[in-house]
Amino acid sequence: MTNLRNEGPIGVFDSGLGGLTVLRALHERLPHEDFVYIGDTARTPYGTRGKQTILNYAHACARVLREQRVKLLAIACNTLSAVALSSLDGELFFPVIGALRPGAQAALGVSTGKRIGVLASTRTALADAYPQAFSALDHSARVYVQKSPLLVTLADEGWTEGEVPTLVVREYLKPLLSHSIDTLLLGCSQYPLFSKLIEAELAPHPTPRGRPIAVVDSAQPLAKQVVREIAERQLATERTDPGKLRIVLSDMPEDFTVANRYLGRDLATLQVTAVDL
Amino acid sequence: MTNLRNEGPIGVFDSGLGGLTVLRALHERLPHEDFVYIGDTARTPYGTRGKQTILNYAHACARVLREQRVKLLAIACNTLSAVALSSLDGELFFPVIGALRPGAQAALGVSTGKRIGVLASTRTALADAYPQAFSALDHSARVYVQKSPLLVTLADEGWTEGEVPTLVVREYLKPLLSHSIDTLLLGCSQYPLFSKLIEAELAPHPTPRGRPIAVVDSAQPLAKQVVREIAERQLATERTDPGKLRIVLSDMPEDFTVANRYLGRDLATLQVTAVDL
Repeated sequence: MTNLRNEGPIGVFDSGLGGLTVLRALHERLPHEDFVYIGDTARTPYGTRGKQTILNYAHACARVLREQRVKLLAIACNTLSAVALSSLDGELFFPVIGALRPGAQAALGVSTGKRIGVLASTRTALADAYPQAFSALDHSARVYVQKSPLLVTLADEGWTEGEVPTLVVREYLKPLLSHSIDTLLLGCSQYPLFSKLIEAELAPHPTPRGRPIAVVDSAQPLAKQVVREIAERQLATERTDPGKLRIVLSDMPEDFTVANRYLGRDLATLQVTAVDL
Repeated sequence: MTNLRNEGPIGVFDSGLGGLTVLRALHERLPHEDFVYIGDTARTPYGTRGKQTILNYAHACARVLREQRVKLLAIACNTLSAVALSSLDGELFFPVIGALRPGAQAALGVSTGKRIGVLASTRTALADAYPQAFSALDHSARVYVQKSPLLVTLADEGWTEGEVPTLVVREYLKPLLSHSIDTLLLGCSQYPLFSKLIEAELAPHPTPRGRPIAVVDSAQPLAKQVVREIAERQLATERTDPGKLRIVLSDMPEDFTVANRYLGRDLATLQVTAVDL
């Protein structure tokens, strides 16, 4: 007998479009699962808002998530994970997985000297959530968080190469390099767009052991964690046909250029609907 | 007998904090008037949103404006002026003044060759509202609009000097300079923070008559227009004591550094309240 709960979609919740990288990673790993992606594009970015405002927005999105009958929720937005994870977890009747812990675990896994830099939104940096997430896993880790809000706008504009993003990245990396980090965690779902540029900027600054500073993003670790939870909680679908992707956005973008880049395929081929949040 | 209507405040409506430059200009010109400033800081910037989303936001703010019993409204945000002016004008029972026409008039007033560049938000550029505003005033004007969304984030961050803003400004000015503009209109309430930098970038590119390209912002022309309308419509207060400023924001900023810079005084000395929009 089919377990009805297991045939519900997996939810991915983001403040904007960056979380489509998480959806992509999940869809590749779980091709038979249905997914519903909620992006609050009408009010993105969350990273510069106050805590209460973000909680209000999360609450409004939770209503939509319940209507979609998701069986498990991945919070792709690091700001949401930093500010609203426990609140959402208390409000929703299905498992909620945040981006911070999987990212911190992955960073600790590759770190050679436990000196870890994090690029994050203003709100995530202020919330002190990353130092707490690392500390819960390993008390000895030194964690340095740099707010880097301009990367969000550059990503939205698709301006990810050339002089301007290079200088912006260089400016944000300076204080982290002064702390002799050996690992850099990209603590915002949009920052992987700058991976190449960041790696090039870090290249002249090897760790004391002569190895390059490791760059880790949280999309892949979050996706892996979701796959584990689906298995452990016995939530996998029994269907064997290709799963469906639904995209729900609160504001329709002018075009899907940036979104397509995150998702790695053409959004126009998917069901994209608008919702008031 | 005191005219009760005339003793209501003048409203200034902005998507964020940039419109405080307009409030400042108005307060200097009309020191006995009360003002109420509404900044939708929880959902700023509007300039990257879709048209319907902006109309929804304007509608929500209109409710607050009615509760405040304003006697006349200045829309400091150029995106709101471009997208929602006629809608707000139809919905509100007091005069509504947008930023586009006063700015266009001021630009035409100083232009020597009627080749005018405009820096504006993405939405304002897409709405084609500036070419229309200029065309209504002078059919012969050539108008070139350049979207420049990154300046909004740089302004929010207070990052208005140095290499990064210089390069960003240079990049946005390139296409306008290729059209041999003689006047540049700053079509967003936050852009005056970059005036000095923009003038320095324009200096090596004088007009054919050897004069520097004129830079015009819309805050001062909008303030002048409001002063005129208050007089013409006989809406001036009869009080002679200093007017009060009230600031209403949908999200409280972490600190008032940037806001103080726009307003030219310390917001902490004013009545600042939060509202759900």
